[in-house]
Amino acid sequence: MDAEEFRRVGHEVVDWIADYRARVEEFPVRSRVEPGWVRGQLDGLSEAGGDFAGLLADLERVVLPGTTHWQHPGFYAYFPSNASLPSVLGDLLSSGLGVQGMLWSTSPAATEVEQHLMDELVGAMGLPERFLGGGVIQDTASSAALVALLAALHRASGGKWRQSGVDGAETVYVSSQTHSSIERAARMAGLGEQAVRSIPVDPATSAMDAGALAARLKADVEAGRRPVLVCATIGTTGTGAVDPVREVAALCAEHGAWLHVDAAWAGPAALCPEFRPLFDGVGLADSFTANAHKWMLTAFDLSLFWTAHPDVLVDALTILPEYLRNTATESGAVVDYRDWQIPLGRRFRALKLWSVLRWYGLEGVRAHLRRHVELAALLESWVGADEGWELAAPRTLSLVTLAHRDGDGATRAAMERVNASGDAFVTHTTVNGRFAVRVAIGAEGTREHHVRALWEALRGEE
Amino acid sequence: MDAEEFRRVGHEVVDWIADYRARVEEFPVRSRVEPGWVRGQLDGLSEAGGDFAGLLADLERVVLPGTTHWQHPGFYAYFPSNASLPSVLGDLLSSGLGVQGMLWSTSPAATEVEQHLMDELVGAMGLPERFLGGGVIQDTASSAALVALLAALHRASGGKWRQSGVDGAETVYVSSQTHSSIERAARMAGLGEQAVRSIPVDPATSAMDAGALAARLKADVEAGRRPVLVCATIGTTGTGAVDPVREVAALCAEHGAWLHVDAAWAGPAALCPEFRPLFDGVGLADSFTANAHKWMLTAFDLSLFWTAHPDVLVDALTILPEYLRNTATESGAVVDYRDWQIPLGRRFRALKLWSVLRWYGLEGVRAHLRRHVELAALLESWVGADEGWELAAPRTLSLVTLAHRDGDGATRAAMERVNASGDAFVTHTTVNGRFAVRVAIGAEGTREHHVRALWEALRGEE
Repeated sequence: MDAEEFRRVGHEVVDWIADYRARVEEFPVRSRVEPGWVRGQLDGLSEAGGDFAGLLADLERVVLPGTTHWQHPGFYAYFPSNASLPSVLGDLLSSGLGVQGMLWSTSPAATEVEQHLMDELVGAMGLPERFLGGGVIQDTASSAALVALLAALHRASGGKWRQSGVDGAETVYVSSQTHSSIERAARMAGLGEQAVRSIPVDPATSAMDAGALAARLKADVEAGRRPVLVCATIGTTGTGAVDPVREVAALCAEHGAWLHVDAAWAGPAALCPEFRPLFDGVGLADSFTANAHKWMLTAFDLSLFWTAHPDVLVDALTILPEYLRNTATESGAVVDYRDWQIPLGRRFRALKLWSVLRWYGLEGVRAHLRRHVELAALLESWVGADEGWELAAPRTLSLVTLAHRDGDGATRAAMERVNASGDAFVTHTTVNGRFAVRVAIGAEGTREHHVRALWEALRGEE
Repeated sequence: MDAEEFRRVGHEVVDWIADYRARVEEFPVRSRVEPGWVRGQLDGLSEAGGDFAGLLADLERVVLPGTTHWQHPGFYAYFPSNASLPSVLGDLLSSGLGVQGMLWSTSPAATEVEQHLMDELVGAMGLPERFLGGGVIQDTASSAALVALLAALHRASGGKWRQSGVDGAETVYVSSQTHSSIERAARMAGLGEQAVRSIPVDPATSAMDAGALAARLKADVEAGRRPVLVCATIGTTGTGAVDPVREVAALCAEHGAWLHVDAAWAGPAALCPEFRPLFDGVGLADSFTANAHKWMLTAFDLSLFWTAHPDVLVDALTILPEYLRNTATESGAVVDYRDWQIPLGRRFRALKLWSVLRWYGLEGVRAHLRRHVELAALLESWVGADEGWELAAPRTLSLVTLAHRDGDGATRAAMERVNASGDAFVTHTTVNGRFAVRVAIGAEGTREHHVRALWEALRGEE
């Protein structure tokens, strides 16, 4: 495909996406296909090349029916993942440039635009100055958690981990509501599930019980275990619970454990001063993560990660074979982000974040966040005034967790009815054993009439 | 940005990329900026939103001078990373759809198109049938290696690894020429560098010495170590060496070790029957990886990974918190690719691979591979006929490693002269301690006149 063909076909692809986004509400949010249907529609690989028209036809015929429409305004499941159109174009520019930024020297702009944006966001989000120079883009919060754990293991070993590995006494602390990625990271790091302590939560708030954490740390240390990392969450996946970060930080300091703060979903809210109280204590964290690809208008995948100890991270993960040696690296004047992540190679992901920040401006991003919080507060008020439904957990920001007073059967039936309608898609959690519907308001196009329709559908009003 | 604005701005972005690709040869291949120059040109974040014209202007003014042009026909460094224009559009479609395919149910087509392509490629690449149903797209070969190692650890422990972690007796085998990602994976998995055995290579071919591997395995087992994984490479990064996979496989079988075959660069060549002899024994591998984003026309990042034991991999990595439970998963009728990778979330990466396979067809991809191999053979013939230069290692496919007979100083000076010219970019390696230039022919636009110009520049002819 030469440049002129690309121009012609590229315009068609852009138009196809524009049309798709304009008609996204015409589709059922959740795909209705059966397992195997999509594969059954696909042809084998062809010897001869073809044209893009055939591919676009297959997108219509096969892919769209097999798609769960994450950009639909009725998507309230999991956490919505904004792929705003400016970010789509930023990512297109990244693919178009086609650079691979593993080293500073393999494309200086890929590294320096990222450094610049990560440092600027420290100020914009009210994060501590100790994060300056410690920011990097990861693909996901799962990878960010793994990277944090590896740095923590290296530090806790006094720098012996890289050579000697783990010794089986390392211990990691989460709450029962912490995202599963931390337990998975402990597994991947060779600690096994035996190393993970699940600390109970306050039943009223689902936040980690700091007293229970203190007791468990003490008991473990007395038993010869070595506390390596505690993960505190600001905005849990289940209900949006906020762990007592400041108290947890004091316990981490006492025991020399790394404090990782996971704000994968709620993190972008730190851009709004009125939501900053949720982030109390975050300045004490050793690392912090927030996903731009959830609630910050940036197409998946882009997770913001900061650490106050980039030197530890780099020392843990660096390796320099002959074929990667270069003058810039040896000068010590540059950052090579390959040492900050699991993979070696990396896309120029900063371009899609830059596109978002420039198109919307900070005010535009804040307006997007505030709209969803306002809509969630509205839904909360309707639930509070209803005889059949009640909150199953306190609302945090734009996440409302609710349950029917008639019990789990009624709640589940309402959820299934809504999801079958095609107008909305919600998922569930359990709160103190009770089945509850999560309404995560966060799709870019969601407006009051969508939330009102969801509420009416949950209540059984057609 | 609404659909109509996206249409207008999107066309501008497509045109900008078309123009960039049309003029890519006007830029010096390797960026000439000094550390810090790019950051010094950037403004702080703005409160107000803006337009895309300002971003495109900054791309021209700041990003392009700070870019090392991986899509330039004179890019012979590392391994080139094709970002063909059809793959760019496939990736654009993925961002435009904006789905997140962690579970089958979160977008069935994202999973099933991937399963389909991975199974079809098993046939097209002559891979063993035992890989059918075991294919998945990873971001990079580094992540693929880590995933393979985690599955191997789980298997070697009899399924206890997930709970108990590693015990320090696990041992991993590489050659001295194996990519650094394997040693790094061992570190990340908690084994430490102490667990990695670097097996010597045959000085003539740089291939792993199977006899030395056998001796080391035997000695380790006698010393109470547990061989967990051997990585054999088809096409090493330094010189393109090919390890004796069949012999290594027999040793793995004898010791119950997992055989991971890393063909990150050379793997796509398996599409051409005449190159299949390089892949002898690959049918015995437990896992195999080949990067579509290096030599298979697919924009970074897309690494093809197959394992004969997807059940082991899933058992090692699966985790199912309440908020991810769903009917399709519980039916057992679907694959949830989140269990096959390090992160939880995932892009619809298969779209960019599908775009490549449909636009070029298998014949088109083969023509692309064969052109580079022919150009490398031509360069090899010129080197062979020259009085000043010689091959530093046997050519493999499209990788030529050469050195000046006058010694390292002359070789390095020629490399630096070429790189400073801006017309080409090559990197280096060492072969038995000798400094050598690597010419990795693989950019989509590279033609004979480019390679001839490189050769003349290396020889000092302007």
